[in-house]
Amino acid sequence: MPVIERGAGRGAADVPVVRVGVLGCGNVGGALVDIVDEDADGIAERSGVRLEVTRVAVRSLAKPRVASLQTERLTHDAHSVATDPDVDVVVELIGGIEPARTLIVDALKAGKPVVTANKELLANFGAELFAVAEAAGRDLLFEATVAGGIPLLRALRVSLAGERIRRVTGIVNGTTNYVLSRMSEERIGYGEALQEAQSLGYAERDPTADVEGYDASAKAAILASIAFNADIVAGDVYREGIETIEVDDIDFAHRLGYEVKLLAVAEHLDPGESGIPAVAVRVHPAMVPKDHPLAGVRGPFNAVFVEGEAVGDLMLYGRGAGGRPTASAVLGDLVDAARGLVGGGAVWFPARSRVEVRPIDELEAQYYLTIDVLDRPGVLAAVASVFGAHGVSIRSMEQVDLGTEARLVFITHRAREADVQATLAGLRDVEAVARIGQLLRVIDPGH
Amino acid sequence: MPVIERGAGRGAADVPVVRVGVLGCGNVGGALVDIVDEDADGIAERSGVRLEVTRVAVRSLAKPRVASLQTERLTHDAHSVATDPDVDVVVELIGGIEPARTLIVDALKAGKPVVTANKELLANFGAELFAVAEAAGRDLLFEATVAGGIPLLRALRVSLAGERIRRVTGIVNGTTNYVLSRMSEERIGYGEALQEAQSLGYAERDPTADVEGYDASAKAAILASIAFNADIVAGDVYREGIETIEVDDIDFAHRLGYEVKLLAVAEHLDPGESGIPAVAVRVHPAMVPKDHPLAGVRGPFNAVFVEGEAVGDLMLYGRGAGGRPTASAVLGDLVDAARGLVGGGAVWFPARSRVEVRPIDELEAQYYLTIDVLDRPGVLAAVASVFGAHGVSIRSMEQVDLGTEARLVFITHRAREADVQATLAGLRDVEAVARIGQLLRVIDPGH
Repeated sequence: MPVIERGAGRGAADVPVVRVGVLGCGNVGGALVDIVDEDADGIAERSGVRLEVTRVAVRSLAKPRVASLQTERLTHDAHSVATDPDVDVVVELIGGIEPARTLIVDALKAGKPVVTANKELLANFGAELFAVAEAAGRDLLFEATVAGGIPLLRALRVSLAGERIRRVTGIVNGTTNYVLSRMSEERIGYGEALQEAQSLGYAERDPTADVEGYDASAKAAILASIAFNADIVAGDVYREGIETIEVDDIDFAHRLGYEVKLLAVAEHLDPGESGIPAVAVRVHPAMVPKDHPLAGVRGPFNAVFVEGEAVGDLMLYGRGAGGRPTASAVLGDLVDAARGLVGGGAVWFPARSRVEVRPIDELEAQYYLTIDVLDRPGVLAAVASVFGAHGVSIRSMEQVDLGTEARLVFITHRAREADVQATLAGLRDVEAVARIGQLLRVIDPGH
Repeated sequence: MPVIERGAGRGAADVPVVRVGVLGCGNVGGALVDIVDEDADGIAERSGVRLEVTRVAVRSLAKPRVASLQTERLTHDAHSVATDPDVDVVVELIGGIEPARTLIVDALKAGKPVVTANKELLANFGAELFAVAEAAGRDLLFEATVAGGIPLLRALRVSLAGERIRRVTGIVNGTTNYVLSRMSEERIGYGEALQEAQSLGYAERDPTADVEGYDASAKAAILASIAFNADIVAGDVYREGIETIEVDDIDFAHRLGYEVKLLAVAEHLDPGESGIPAVAVRVHPAMVPKDHPLAGVRGPFNAVFVEGEAVGDLMLYGRGAGGRPTASAVLGDLVDAARGLVGGGAVWFPARSRVEVRPIDELEAQYYLTIDVLDRPGVLAAVASVFGAHGVSIRSMEQVDLGTEARLVFITHRAREADVQATLAGLRDVEAVARIGQLLRVIDPGH
């Protein structure tokens, strides 16, 4: 059991002091140390615990740090911080799988609650870490892993614990939302919008993890795990990125009353023949109706739309990234963990249910499809017959003249993904089809 | 200490059973009993506690109830439920001050955590009830008192416990938001929109509490108390309703790029000479810029916009009323209280700080003002000189011809409320001024 000193003689009488060890001190860690150092009295007053960052593990002792970070708190040795008997709670902000995973396990085994912002680790080894935390009877909190400062995971874990969640749909990657917002607002191309995002610090120099949807997939796995009390890993998530989105697609979306957004969707489905509850989790760009609350989420903001049986529609909106918003989420967890430690109650972990993860093939949605064809008589009939042969019904079609070719832009009625993919395969065999263009799923709020 | 039976032999092995007594069984109570009865297994699986509604106190035993509510659970005697040794957690859904207040106090003193949806009681006697709960070491949870199913108060109390909240701005009354949305969308008058709201069940037959802002004031007091850890009561809240809003005002707002919304605003201010932290809490219609996330909140929906030092801007959006959404919030609290009881940790209540509640006079904002004047030369100069004499600077003016009269529509630069009120008093003395029309505060996201 960690030592909890009383705060007597420290200004705020009778407020217990909780000593915090921080592993990793980049953007988020620096902001966290700053906030805790500057506002320790305020935090004590508001939360009933006095936080003191007593040790900080960093990679390089030479790098310039926030002014308040005196060198005597700094060390190279992260493991000594994670297991230090004079540290009560550990915050892991190193990121990546190792050494973060071992450090968290060792901290929990040493009886310390852990707060982490590490989405990659949680999305791949969450089940293992929860088992260690449960065995140790210590909290493992991770609000900052999804949608930065938005108080989302605690809402799902506590406020909505009694609620049957049907679906969670999120804009959980600020980089891609910024890029798509700029393409939508300024009618600039993907490349130009991405460059702008990079120059403003909203995108990394290597933007792969964001634009190809890997970052959103990790968050989708965590969201689905919490919403459905299941062990969903990043590899369970169907994934597409935004690299192929063109301004033409966005123009078309606008004309039809939609915005294009990269969505993370986690859905609860009816159990199949096995009787095991089923879920589907996916990340892909989609057309979102303009009057849907997610359509108005612009720039680097994040938002998560939750559909529950009793509560109906909820949305939580805010900054999904950045040092201070993310540090705010870490701080909330830190206060919660510290209060739990001081209060001495049992730590609660939900039972994980076995679920079946359904493949994208079984998705039912409306689809936006573009197909470039040779501009000659009879082509539309040939194309339409392929749709018909696979049972995909066309809701609307528009033809755009491209010179010797024409672009056919289709919106389908609700159809199964497998049938739409079969339709595309069939279309590739039609001689007059020059190329298959875009495929976007269309969000239909009624379903 | 209440008896906690183990759930062995009940299907979900090793899940503790928590027996719930419900006081009041109207819309919300009926929905709650329904959900708990129908989904007890699901709730046990998701939350780790098995809830059983064992007793329900109702006013009339004759009234038809939800099918699942067998008469053996029903009683007239609310007090016997609140203090029943076979009830572990009490849910108060009677509303109003008495007998709810006494029942809650007696339940807490009997060692039972209490969940309530009673905003009137919390907004007037919160401090007293928290003191009783703290002394009893039992939870008193009230998520459902503000913004129905939106998981707002727990976000403020836990996730943002480390955060310095600067301002909370909410659309917390669905009736008035529905009325204003219809006036905005359909250009119908206040009376017609209110009738429509009544016929759809969004407004009571006597709509006073909603349209005059009393309901929103109680919620603003609770929000301010939680956001600033202070004892703010409904009487501390400056209040205006929406009865005087005309379609013309909304047209003008649209032309200038605004929507008109009834807002509850709780602001943290710099301490004055006394050094005591200061807050301002008010409810009034306001012009909200169209690109502000609150402007898009339509119909009966609620939303609360939170500005924090580290987290930046957050918004939580959802259904603010209705049996099932409100029951969902009660259920979340119930699960939290039940887990706390089973886990056995200390219950935490924030220290309440002394704050100074500043009057509306000290507000600084931009203002929208309409003044009807006799249409003759020299009037504008006379009017403008009154603004000038009180230091209120005009940002824009538009004149609308009304025949023998003219309507002057002003937007001011930022000004003090006291100076604006003095300007209006001065204008009443100008002979050519026929009547003072509307005064609306304008939300300026920069401040």
